[in-house]
Formats: sequence, C-alpha cells, structure tokens
Amino acid sequence: MDQMKSFVDRHIGIGTDEQKDMLDFLGYKDLDSFIKAVVPKSILEDDYLNLGDGLSEMAALKKLDKIAKQNKVFRSYIGQGYYGTVTPKVIKRNVFENPSWYTSYTPYQAEISQGRLEALINFQTTICELTSMEIANASLLDEATAAAEAMMLAKRVSKNKSNCFFVDKNCFEQTVAVLETRAKPFGIVLEIGDPKDFAEKDFFGMFIQYPNKFGEINDFSKLSDYCKKNKSLLVCATDLLALTLIKPPGEIGADIVIGSSQRFGVPMGFGGPHAAFMATHESFQRSMPGRIIGASKDASGSLSYRLALQTREQHIRREKATSNICTSQALLAVMAGFFAIYHGPEGLMGIAKDVHKKTLKLYNGITNGEHTILHNNFFDTLCVHLNGDISGIKARLLEAKINVNWIDTNLISVSVDEATTSADIDDLIIALTNKDAPNSTENEKVGLNKNMMRTSSFMKQERFNKYHSETEMMRYIKRLSDKDIALDRSMIPLGSCTMKLNSASEMAPVSWPEFANMHPYCPIDQTEGYQNLIQDLKSMLSEITGYFDISLQPNAGSQGEYAGLLAIDAYHKNNGDNNRSICLIPRSAHGTNPASAMMVGMKVVPVECDLDGNIDLEDLKEKSFTHKNDLSAIMITYPSTHGVFESNVREVCNIVHDHGGLVYIDGANLNALVGIAKPGEFGGDVSHLNLHKTFCIPHGGGGPGVGPIGVVEKLKDFMPSHHKDIKSVGPVSSTDYGSASILPISWMYIAMMGSGGLKKATMTAILSANYVAKRLSDHYQILYKGENNLIAHECIIDARPFKESSNIDVDDIAKRLMDYGFHAPTMSWPVAGTLMIEPTESESKEELDIFCEAMISIRKEIEDIENGNDDQVNNILKNSPHTVEELSGDSWEHDYSRQKAAYPLDYLRARKYWPPVKRIDNVYGDKNLFCTCPDMDEF
Amino acid sequence: MDQMKSFVDRHIGIGTDEQKDMLDFLGYKDLDSFIKAVVPKSILEDDYLNLGDGLSEMAALKKLDKIAKQNKVFRSYIGQGYYGTVTPKVIKRNVFENPSWYTSYTPYQAEISQGRLEALINFQTTICELTSMEIANASLLDEATAAAEAMMLAKRVSKNKSNCFFVDKNCFEQTVAVLETRAKPFGIVLEIGDPKDFAEKDFFGMFIQYPNKFGEINDFSKLSDYCKKNKSLLVCATDLLALTLIKPPGEIGADIVIGSSQRFGVPMGFGGPHAAFMATHESFQRSMPGRIIGASKDASGSLSYRLALQTREQHIRREKATSNICTSQALLAVMAGFFAIYHGPEGLMGIAKDVHKKTLKLYNGITNGEHTILHNNFFDTLCVHLNGDISGIKARLLEAKINVNWIDTNLISVSVDEATTSADIDDLIIALTNKDAPNSTENEKVGLNKNMMRTSSFMKQERFNKYHSETEMMRYIKRLSDKDIALDRSMIPLGSCTMKLNSASEMAPVSWPEFANMHPYCPIDQTEGYQNLIQDLKSMLSEITGYFDISLQPNAGSQGEYAGLLAIDAYHKNNGDNNRSICLIPRSAHGTNPASAMMVGMKVVPVECDLDGNIDLEDLKEKSFTHKNDLSAIMITYPSTHGVFESNVREVCNIVHDHGGLVYIDGANLNALVGIAKPGEFGGDVSHLNLHKTFCIPHGGGGPGVGPIGVVEKLKDFMPSHHKDIKSVGPVSSTDYGSASILPISWMYIAMMGSGGLKKATMTAILSANYVAKRLSDHYQILYKGENNLIAHECIIDARPFKESSNIDVDDIAKRLMDYGFHAPTMSWPVAGTLMIEPTESESKEELDIFCEAMISIRKEIEDIENGNDDQVNNILKNSPHTVEELSGDSWEHDYSRQKAAYPLDYLRARKYWPPVKRIDNVYGDKNLFCTCPDMDEF
Repeated sequence: MDQMKSFVDRHIGIGTDEQKDMLDFLGYKDLDSFIKAVVPKSILEDDYLNLGDGLSEMAALKKLDKIAKQNKVFRSYIGQGYYGTVTPKVIKRNVFENPSWYTSYTPYQAEISQGRLEALINFQTTICELTSMEIANASLLDEATAAAEAMMLAKRVSKNKSNCFFVDKNCFEQTVAVLETRAKPFGIVLEIGDPKDFAEKDFFGMFIQYPNKFGEINDFSKLSDYCKKNKSLLVCATDLLALTLIKPPGEIGADIVIGSSQRFGVPMGFGGPHAAFMATHESFQRSMPGRIIGASKDASGSLSYRLALQTREQHIRREKATSNICTSQALLAVMAGFFAIYHGPEGLMGIAKDVHKKTLKLYNGITNGEHTILHNNFFDTLCVHLNGDISGIKARLLEAKINVNWIDTNLISVSVDEATTSADIDDLIIALTNKDAPNSTENEKVGLNKNMMRTSSFMKQERFNKYHSETEMMRYIKRLSDKDIALDRSMIPLGSCTMKLNSASEMAPVSWPEFANMHPYCPIDQTEGYQNLIQDLKSMLSEITGYFDISLQPNAGSQGEYAGLLAIDAYHKNNGDNNRSICLIPRSAHGTNPASAMMVGMKVVPVECDLDGNIDLEDLKEKSFTHKNDLSAIMITYPSTHGVFESNVREVCNIVHDHGGLVYIDGANLNALVGIAKPGEFGGDVSHLNLHKTFCIPHGGGGPGVGPIGVVEKLKDFMPSHHKDIKSVGPVSSTDYGSASILPISWMYIAMMGSGGLKKATMTAILSANYVAKRLSDHYQILYKGENNLIAHECIIDARPFKESSNIDVDDIAKRLMDYGFHAPTMSWPVAGTLMIEPTESESKEELDIFCEAMISIRKEIEDIENGNDDQVNNILKNSPHTVEELSGDSWEHDYSRQKAAYPLDYLRARKYWPPVKRIDNVYGDKNLFCTCPDMDEF
Repeated sequence: MDQMKSFVDRHIGIGTDEQKDMLDFLGYKDLDSFIKAVVPKSILEDDYLNLGDGLSEMAALKKLDKIAKQNKVFRSYIGQGYYGTVTPKVIKRNVFENPSWYTSYTPYQAEISQGRLEALINFQTTICELTSMEIANASLLDEATAAAEAMMLAKRVSKNKSNCFFVDKNCFEQTVAVLETRAKPFGIVLEIGDPKDFAEKDFFGMFIQYPNKFGEINDFSKLSDYCKKNKSLLVCATDLLALTLIKPPGEIGADIVIGSSQRFGVPMGFGGPHAAFMATHESFQRSMPGRIIGASKDASGSLSYRLALQTREQHIRREKATSNICTSQALLAVMAGFFAIYHGPEGLMGIAKDVHKKTLKLYNGITNGEHTILHNNFFDTLCVHLNGDISGIKARLLEAKINVNWIDTNLISVSVDEATTSADIDDLIIALTNKDAPNSTENEKVGLNKNMMRTSSFMKQERFNKYHSETEMMRYIKRLSDKDIALDRSMIPLGSCTMKLNSASEMAPVSWPEFANMHPYCPIDQTEGYQNLIQDLKSMLSEITGYFDISLQPNAGSQGEYAGLLAIDAYHKNNGDNNRSICLIPRSAHGTNPASAMMVGMKVVPVECDLDGNIDLEDLKEKSFTHKNDLSAIMITYPSTHGVFESNVREVCNIVHDHGGLVYIDGANLNALVGIAKPGEFGGDVSHLNLHKTFCIPHGGGGPGVGPIGVVEKLKDFMPSHHKDIKSVGPVSSTDYGSASILPISWMYIAMMGSGGLKKATMTAILSANYVAKRLSDHYQILYKGENNLIAHECIIDARPFKESSNIDVDDIAKRLMDYGFHAPTMSWPVAGTLMIEPTESESKEELDIFCEAMISIRKEIEDIENGNDDQVNNILKNSPHTVEELSGDSWEHDYSRQKAAYPLDYLRARKYWPPVKRIDNVYGDKNLFCTCPDMDEF
C-alpha cells in the first residue's frame, strides 16, 4: 500500500511543507544537515536501525492479533493477588478507551486536572473506607512494591529501633520475594515465620496478610496488641473485596495497610498494570510514599483538589527522599475508584456475598468427594489437599481449560471471583471430583468466622450512593473529564515527559481478551503469545538502545533506575569489589537518581556542571580519581536534563570506566536518540527506558508506566527476576514482566514506525524543539544550548528575571497559560524558576505556532507590568487562571477587561478551554489535609 | 449472580426509594396499581412476556459472542456496492465508539448541535466535490432507496411529462429491484435496458451507473446530450472512491447523482447501516429529499450551521410531502466525512491508485491464465469469464476463504478494495488460476480510459488539507463533540423519540469483526451467526408485539410504514379488492403517516379527534361506513401521539375491521407498551417498531434507525424481500436485513432486560412521565390526559397562551432551556405551540427534578414579562441562548444580569453547558443557501 498514507505520517505532526518552512526558519537546507549540526559526530549513527519498514496500522494489528491468539485464555482460579473481574462496560468505554482520560498527564497543574483529581480522591476514599484507615495515597505500583514501601515507611516512623522486620510466611510469595530484594541494601533483617508461633522478639514492624495466600482469614488482634506493646508497627496486606464482609485492618489495630485494587474492575493483564494501595494513620502523612490527593480551596474559596504534601516528593528531597517513586497507577486507580462508585457499598457487598456463596458451593462440592480442605475460615479461596488420582484431575482440568494454583503435587488453592459463574463452579467440581456438582450454596460451619465479620458500615458518602445507573455514571465520567486538559485538547509541552501521540491503533490491543484476561502465574505453555510479544519487544529495544539484554520487569522509570543500579552493585560485588559504593551524580540530575542510588545502598557524590549546564570534566576527573577504589557508577542523562547534546559524553563515560565505575544513562530523554544514537554504543552500561515517554504508552494521568532496563553483556546475570533458578538480583516488581498488558502499545508503535519512521520521529522532535526555541528566543532567554547554538528535543526558558522586573514567577506564567488553553511546560526543573518545553514530533506546526504566540503574548503582559502599566500584585497573570464563572460574573473588579482575560488571542475563539477553578491554595490544603471525599459541611 | 446488580438496575434510572417517592407524590401505593390506573383494562396483559429472565451483561455478551462466531468471515471481493474498508482507528474510537457522537439526537436544535452539523456539512462538501455537483444532502438510507428517491425527484422536477423512466440494466441488481418496488404504486413505467442501444423514447429520466455492476466505466456523455435535448433528467449512480480518478458525473452533465459512502470507512456490516448520498443542481434544492445542512449566521453574526429548508420535510407537508424520509444515516455520514477529512484529497487519491494498481495486478495475473476479462475499462472491478475446471476454482476459493461474486456458472466479478493487500491478490490469483501470481502492477492497455480520467481538482478547502496527523484529527473530533448536547450530558426529553440509555454493553458487539466484516451477499452458509441473531430477534419482537411475523428489512421508521402499507395494499389486491385504497388517518397523526400512504398509492381521508385528542368514534364510524367498499386501512398511533392511552382502541380497530379495512398501528410509542400490552393482540394488523427508540439503538445524531414491521398471519406473504422465489411485495431496502450490523444492540437489550426488566422499564417510563406532568402542572397547562387524569409515557405542555400574555413562543422556551443545559422537548408537535416531554425510564429522579426546576424557572421568567417587569421584545428568553463569549464580553447591555442569564439555578454551577452560538437565523440561511463548507470570505 505504498501510495497510501503510512502510520509515520499520522504519528508525526509536521508535514513536508511545514518541515521545509521550519528548516528555512532555522537556516538549514535539509533535515540531515540540521541533525548533523545538532548531534555530536562522535555518537551519531550512520546506518538506519535494523527494524525493517513500518507496517500499516492494519498490517500491524493483524500481525499482533496472530501473536495474541497464541495465548491460551483458561478460566483462572489461581488467585494470589490476581482475580477475574468484570470491568463495567461504561467504565471500559468511557475511561479506559477514552483519550480524555488516558492521555492526560500527572495532575501537577491542579487547576486543569480537577476531573482526575476527583476520581483519584474517590479511589483514596474507597481505600480508607474499606480498610478503616485515616489516609490513603493515590496508588502505588503493585502489591509487592507497596509492601516494600510499607516496610520502609515503618522503618522511618517506628519507635522501635530494631533492624528486624517480621514477615508472615503465609503472605503471597511475590510479596515476600520483593521484600527480600528491597530489605537487603538497607541491612534490614527479614524474619519470615508463622505469626502463630513467632518468638517475642524485637521488630520495628511486622507484616501479615489476611486473607493469606491459602485463603485463610486469621484474627491478628493479639499480634496487634503485641505490636502496640512492643512499639513495632503492624503492616497488613489485605483484599478489598473481602473487606466488605470481614473486619478491616483498621479495626484490629493495623498501622499500615496495603494491597491491590486489581479486582475492582481492572483485568489481570498477565500481571499488570494495577493500582496498589497504601493506607495508614494521619500522623504518618508526611512519611507516606507516593502521591496523595487532598482538598483545598481556590482563590474564590471553592472546593478544589490538588496533590497534597508535595514536598515529600523525591524531586525535592533527592538523596534525602523517602522513596524514589514518581509514577503511580493513576489510570488504574481511577478505574478502581469508578468501579466502587458504580457499585456502591451495597453493590460491592453483593459481589462479595456472591463470590463467597460460590466458594461455599465449591466447598460443599469438593468435601463431598475425597479431598480435604485445609482450613475453614475463608472468603473466596480454598486450599485443597487432593486425594486420589492426581493425573486424572490434571487431565480433566486441562480438558476443561481450568487453571488452579498448584502449591505442591497434591496441594492446590482455588480462588473464586466476580466473573465466576455458577456453571463454572460446577465444571470445577466435576474436574476435581469426577462427580456431578451438588447445588448447595449453604454451609454454616465454614466460611466467614463470626468473630471476623465486618459490622461497621462504609462508603456512606453521597457519591458512592448516587451514580448507580449507567446513564448517571456515564454523565459523571464525562463531567469529570470535561474539566481536564489532556492531549485530546492541546499540546502538553512537558520537558522530559515526552507527551506524544498515543494512537488508537496502539491502544486497541490492550482491550483484547487474549492480552487482558491472562493470569501472570498461569502455566508457561499457555503464554506463547505473551512470550513472543516480549521477546520481540526486547529485540526491538536492544536494537534501538544498543544494549545486549533488556528486562521488562520494572513498572516505572524509578523502578528501572533501581533495578539498573542493583545490577551495577551486584556486578561489582560479584567481582569481589565490595567497596564500590560511590555513585557520582551531576547536579543537574533528576531527583530520582540520588533517591534510587540511596535505595541500593550507594553513597551519592555530586558532580558539578559548568555554566553551560554540561558536566564539569575537571570535577569529574578529580572525583573519579578520588574514588577510584570505591567508585561504583555515574548516573547521567543524555541528552542532558538541560536538553543539550553534550559533545563530550564519550569522554565522560571513559573517565568513569577508567576508574572502575560503570555508567548509568538515564533514558528519560531517549526520544532525542532513537535511530540516531545508541546509549549502549557510546558508553552506557545500563539505561532504563520510559515506554510511557518514548514508546507511546500514555501517561494515564500519572501512570501506568513501564521502565525497562537495557544492560551490556557483562551485566546480563544481574537482571531482576522471580525465578530462583537463574542468576539475578531478585525481583523488583510483583511479576516478571511488570506491566505486561500495556507492552503491546510499544510493540505497535515500533512495528508501525519501522526504522525510517523512528529516525524521522526523533529528527522531527529535535527540529520542533529548535523551532520553538528560536521563535521564543526574541522574547525569552533560552538557557543552555549545545553546538551551533542548537538544543536537543526540549528547551529551557528562563523566567527568573521577571521576579525582579515585575514580581512575576514561573507559577504565574504556568497558570496564565491555562487561560490560553495550554498545559504549562515542566516548571522549575531542572532549574528553579524556568520552564522546560518539549514539543515532541507529534505536534503540528500550527500547534507549535499557537503555543509560541501564547508565550509571546504572556511575555507582553509581563512587559506591561515591567513598564508600570499594570500593577505588580493585582494583574492578569497573578489572577490567572480565570474561570468562566468569574468572567460571567455581574461585577468585574480588575483593571484589565474581561475579554483580555478570556480571549487574549484570536485563536481562542475557536478552541477556548475553561479552567474549572481559580488558583488553588496549596498552603491551606496542606495545613488542613483532607484526602477523602470531603463532606461539604465538614470542609 | 443473584446478589449482584443486574443490568435492569443499570438501565432504569429510578431506584426503589425514588420509585416509592414518585408513587407517593402521585398518590399510588405501588407500581401495579398505578399502571392499572393508566392502562385500559381491555388491553392490559396479565402475564409476563415469555422471554425468560434477563442475563447479566457478561452472560449476554458471552452468549452473543458464540452466535457471532458462527459467522464465517471470508475475504470479500464481491463488491456490488459493499467493499472492504479500513476505518481509521482514531475515527472508530473517538466517533463510532463515543457516546458524545452516537447518543446525540437529530440536530433540529441547531445551537446545541454545531459539532455534528459541521461534521455533516463536511460530508455534503465531500459529496459535492467528488461528484462535481452543486448541492448534496446529509445522507439517505442506502444506495437503492437513494436511487428510488432520485427517480421521484426526477419525476417531480423533470420538464418531460412522460411516465417512463429508463434504467440501465447494468446497474446493481438491488438498485433495480428497489426501483421496481417504488415505481409501481406511482404508475411509473420502468424501461430496463442497455443504454448503448436504447430506443430514443420519451423518458422523464434515465438512470445509469458507472462504474457499473460489472466494473465497466462507460462514457455517458452522449446519453447526457440526449437527455438535455429530450428534457429528461440524467440520474447517475457512482462510486466515491473511483471519482477521485475518473470523470465525475457533474462533468458529463448528470442532473442527480447518488451512491453509497460505505467504503469511506464504514464496515460492510452485512449490508448496513451506511450513508447513501444524493447530489444535484442547486435549482432542485427545494425538491430534494432528506436533510440538508446549511450555513447561516447567529444573532451576533457568527457563522453557524443548521438544517436548511426544513419546510420541505414530511412533518410539515404531510400528504403533500415529497418523500416520507425522516431518518438519515447521520452517524455514518459523519464517519464518512471524517474519513475524507483525515485522508484529504491526496490521501483519497492515494487509496484509489493503490486499489487500481492491485486490480491491474489481478488483471495481469488472470489474463496470464486461461480466463477472459469481459471489459478493459475498469477501476477496481473485473468481470471474468472463467474457463477450465470451475469446480477446482471453487474448491480453491473455499479453501483460501475467499468470496467472489458469482454472476453465472462460469462468470464472476471481483472487486478490489482499500483493505486488499498485495498478498491477498496473490492468493486470489492462485485460487483462480492455480498458478503463481506474477508481480506486475502495470498495464497500459487496460484500466482507466484516458477519456474518462478526472482532470479537475477537488477538496481544496482548508479543512480537507489540515487534519492529517492523528493528533490533529483527534482534537478536531473532540472540539466538535464538545459543542453538542448528547445523552452523555443531560436528559433529552424528546416526546415520541424515546431517548433512553444506549448502554456500552449493547454497543460493544457492533464493533466485533464477525458482525462488522460480513458482506451482505456472501454465501448463506457463512452467515449462520447473523441468521441466528435475526431469528432470535424476530422471535423476541413477535413475543413483545403479539405479531405472527417480523421483517427486519426496513432501515428506518418511515421505511417500516411504507413496507407495512405495501403489505396491506397487496393483501387487498390479492383478495381481488382492487378498489380498497382509502387510508383513514386521524388528524393527530405524525406527518410520515400520510406521506407513506401516498407512497403506496393510497388516498388519505382524515379522521377527526375530540377535544381530549382522542379519535372521534362517530366520525370514524361515519367515514368507515362511507368508504366500506374502498376502505384499505386506518393508521393510528398507540398510545396516541397526544401521549394518552385511549381506552376505546379495541373499538376503533373493530370498526375498521368491520368495514373491511386493516389496522396499522404506528409503533413510535411502543416504549409505553412493551410487556404490558401487545398491538398484535388488541387489534393491529401491522405495526412498525423503531428499534432506535424502544430498543436502544442510539439516534446517532439523526440515524441510523431500524424500522422493522410486525404483521398478523394473514399478511405474512406480503413482507418485503429481495428473494424472487418467495411471495413478497418486493424489496424496500438495498439488502434483506436493512441495517443488520446494529441489530445486536436490540438483541442485547432484550436479552439483558428479560421479561421482568422490559415490563419494569415500561412501567417506569410511564411513572416518570406522570411524575414530570404532575410536577409541572401547577405551572403549565398539560394538554390531553387519559383515564384518572393520567398520561402515558409522555406529556404535552401548552405554550400557546404565552404568545398573547408575553410574546413568548415555544421556540423561546426551547432556546432558553439550552442556557439551563437541556435539549428542548419535541417542539410544536403534535400540536403547534406545545412542547412534548418524554423522560423515558433511564433518567434518574434527580435529573427529572432538575429538568422540572428548569421548566418552572423559565415559567417564572415568562411571568416577569407578563407582569411587565421585563420587556416583551428584549428579554432573557428572546435573547437566549447566551454564549460564553457574550457573557464574558466587556459590555453587557441587557436589563437582566449576566449571572441570571448564565446561572439562573444553582445546579448549573456543577454542570454548565455553553451553547457555542447564539440564536441562529433560519430565514437568512434559507435565503442564502450554503450547504458546503463555506469559505469565510465568500460567506
């Protein structure tokens, strides 16, 4: 179909004519000569990537469909944290498959994110209500990392200064495994045992789970008493659906509660992404990892939501950070929150009762036969000792396409879920007993123990009891999304975040049942499709990065950093270099870099930058030499966080290598490299990539993300893994492939772009950034440039001078941009008081021009203040954003006109976006923290 | 899953508590006693329908998936008006699967429909540009009915007064067949022949097609000259994709051009729905059937769109109407228009060239073998005389899962399309020749004849040359949908239109490939899934209506009326009653009723209504008696168009039956009957149903619709059909099952609701209507009530008194309702100066209350004028709707405040919708008709 438009033309926003205009404007005759002027010769690849031509959308979907069909989708009773669930179609269609939700960014700019902030506070409220805890965060990456984060939180806040952490051996295996990985670098000693008979030792915290991996529901009240007495913290993993019927952890005295919200409407997806949760006491709020959404008021006093307590975040605290988490699972938390809203407390209890009834039916059916159930206190999971002909049972299960969880040769666990039908239970009973199923769903002797029944009510707030018809739910979802700016409205020019097109063809396969309905622990011979997809994607990413091997396990960029540094650390130790623990990090680095280094037990030594923002080679040499015996690694970002191709990158790498260190290249800026340079070739030993930046996984309002790592050959044995039989540093995520179900997005992107398309995308991204930089350079100072006065794929403009000239700061510009219909660029990073703009290749020239006009117009508004025409305190920037309510108000008290406030440029007549609230008071919100749905009176 | 919420709870907006409150308010103790007070005892069914219990959404989808998988999806080269196409995923996801598009209503209220009006004018412009004609309408039902409408248009405007119409025998067979059905009642004589050698006779019009059914492209210039000379009109069927490369009909002198836009991104769907088009001279504008979108200006002078020339419509002209068409294929026309926008002229030509190249490759591959190609002037279709082993060819085609069009035992046609790949052509060549395919895509001797090549450019307007990246396209679609009110924003209380929930579960199967990718003429043994679906649905509808048999062929309500009356007429004639041609129609009837009667050659005699709006029994008796020898039928609507259950309906039916007539019961109001009364039981002989009203097919902004008919046993032989071997009245649509691909929606609805749910829905719809009527009755006069002062499922409020009291008319109320965030109720129908409100069962009590508050608040605004507090000419109603641009304007010249204009009630703070334009000037638009994208200067 060579005469038809290719996907490359759809993905890249700049057409041939526009490209020519932009090159003319910059003074280059063609794209190649322009790129040669930007990218250092020393790293520029001559050849195209070896990835073949791009496929058409139809051809790529067809190819992927064949791969998907290699997966065998059995009915799963494996459980262990992953359950069948029925995603309400109204949520699937209007949230999960709606770009208004999945293309939005993390809600740092709260005024234009009120919709998803409300949805996330619904999630937090659901968690608090079901766990009976005071505060919850807006999700963590998965249940096992949530457990690890809980352990670290306990370590930070516990008054018991022991270094020991007790772990219930009946917790999910993946949870214990990740706890082990995470505990080690901190020297935390895990004692894994049975809480029923643990020795009364000193622990800073104890980790238990109910229902546990065998489905048993134990009463931990006594253990809780012991913890209180011993000043250790009780950390509890649990199941949200079970909590509608059983006593919540908050009522038995738990201090931290974690778990997964997957079964609230998010498909198993071969392991992820799903939103894990964490809830705790209000008093621990400042130590809690992850994002917390809180209520506050805007400049007019109206209720509004925003990210609370942001000062806890790693980008501020760097090596003092409490966690390296950036990404949350926002989109999945939004879905789980909507699931709770749609069902309401009655509905959720109805589902839970139904699941329990079916479990009782199963119990009755199995005990009728020859098998033994190991415990009688259960909600949805039975642990069954099988007697008789095991191979016959296995054959029948296979024949009926049923998976159970094999714990041992004759021991299984079976978990029932919302999607299990009564007929499914019959099939299961027949497979297990070879007898017809009885129809009894009653059994008063077993099941939920009366002592552990929930008596407290929950989710009494209006919004959980209102949107129960599909019509109401659809409108609620729409009203919320109408408040937000996502990529479906306008460019989101976020430096370092690469908000590019997330095409519908890339997204479509995520909804396919062959990808969505796979359990992560199903037998490997059922997973051929996923295995092939993963192998394909690893090969593609290897070719793109120049690395020997790729691990797709890390489910966020921060996880990738952590895994990469673990690999480096393990490599040194494997060589007997036990002292190599110094991590050099340039001052310009992203805050996660030092936070991650800290998490693997490294010590951070900063490296200075020169006036151009480049790494100071002299300082690097000096520090490398000083630490030649204990140098572990350097962490650099390339192109630099300043958005520049440093020409001496090879030299930087060589210096570190020469002193025995390895080079970690942060892949945040890989969108400037794909197809033109390979970090694995020009000196990197490890990199993490952000599939949610460079490879088109949407940001989802703050997650999911995927942060795979690439490593050189000598590091191949130090990749993360759950498999104990291969060499590895242990697992860093709940499952081996992290967020497996969204990998098709990146596969589709690479397959449709092909070698030529990927290269062109990179070149265009760089062209667009330079075009914007040049257009703005007459009005703003552009910080940092590389050779030939050119930048990479993003540019930093300096707003610091305005503070003095006009009392305007970067926040004012960001908020005023909302009036112009744009999401602000990245603010105050990597340099405070600046804005970093990354247009990506997907934006059209017209959009770039409109954005530039908006920026120039704002500059003129600042000039008016500088000139004294406008007041320094009460002006159009300080009062921004302007809401429609205010603009249509009966009184208007500003010196400038309503029209100037609302329609400063003509293009807005055709595409005006109205911020739903005025500027939000962050200080008020942090001082008066509400992170559940506020009752208006209370608020 | 008996403890879980059922679909019934999701579909019905009124919960148990609300139901109780509403019954209390109305003074009834329970729903049953309330319904007994509303519905005449003589028709109320005692038993539940025999449709079983409702299935859960999951179970219904699973069941339907099994049915779908019974379809065999082969690669289709059948062509004949239905081609493979690649729906751009950005259009599929953001239009076809987006409730903002598919749940909107016909854009009668233009101010809140600017998005879809712009999308439809894009469609019209595409048609004009490609056909080279001056004006086009916003779609017709299918290609064959478009041909019939073209014939009727020609009849009306032709200066040649002959009664003969020439039809090219090489047109699609379905086109000829429908022309035959439609010509007969009007006494039009069809002469079907070869245009190459037709006798120079007198015709009022001539119908030709190029490319024709054999794919041949003939030059009809000479025929065109003959037509001019003869004052007959040249009607031409054609193919949009071909027109990007070949000379358009407008350039050879065609007067009317029709065809299908299916291959512009709309799946074949076993025959429909697809948007047919009609284009003609500007001078015929007032005679053109269907809707025309035109540009006009609003009260502030801004460009705005609206339905032009509405006075042509049947609801005004009744038996003088030029056509009975109401529904168009709006959603499909929107999609086709977006397809054109996304590809642009270059892209469309690219697709066409690619298709042609593949056809050449096929040509070369086949002529290499032993077969003969019948003609050498082709675009995408070859007509092949097969030599050699036919059964071998058939076996290979079957083996390769390929369908071709079998014209005769050794004659086939093969049509290549956008979705055909080069490998597909190879497979086809191998199947046809049993030899490997050559790779030659060139052949200068055959293909497009130079004389017939297009030389003119097209689609030069900016919008066809702008939105070519997916990002730009996604944003354009979003910007347009943001302008409109659809069901995803608020209640659309349209009397007689039943705007109920279109649930995501009902919609999901329409996207399944097993339904979407079936050619309507594929071998019947591949269509088992569709056959079962259709059989199921027919049984369900039989049970619901009490009719013996159902035909799903009519693809709109008007088509159903037409088909139903054809059956009645044929029945009489079959009995030798050739004189029975009088159709009694009450004065309260919908305008389509008389228009349809006229189309089958009946003569309309009106029946009076009494003061309560009921049929005047005395008048009926008298007229029935008068016409006892020539009475054909009565057409009534039940409950009546006045929204009342007339208690004497059985008597009405008996009177007509006693005088030899049959009873046609219009099913527009079936939502008040399902599960509680059956038209086939209480006297109807025929009814049409509107699946797009009662059975949840969304309105799609004005279509698609499905208008099946149910008939009593004695009429079973007079159903529409394309099959010449069974007794029938001939076909009324292009294919046997009309809009087959959307039938799964209604199947899902009925399957999920079950007998109990359907009955509850009906009862709730009636309850909600009565609740609204009572709430409003203190403020407005409610016209027409039935027994016990109760209404059926809709109520009419009288706005006529306000004209005198305050100079306010119904239009002012409708436009002011937009400021309150609501789509107006049905305006001035069935009584001029009234509003008819139908809330349906899907709305929540809260939504009903908010709507009532809005209506009451408007009543108070009228009172202010009545009291002299406000001016009669310049007031808040006359100036409505108020746009945000105006409200945020620097000057405000009204006596009332901005806040009162924008936020008259508090609920609006949380859900304000902003009309994008002020009141539109219809007169200006009709006087200055622009029905293509206006060039702003020109406009």
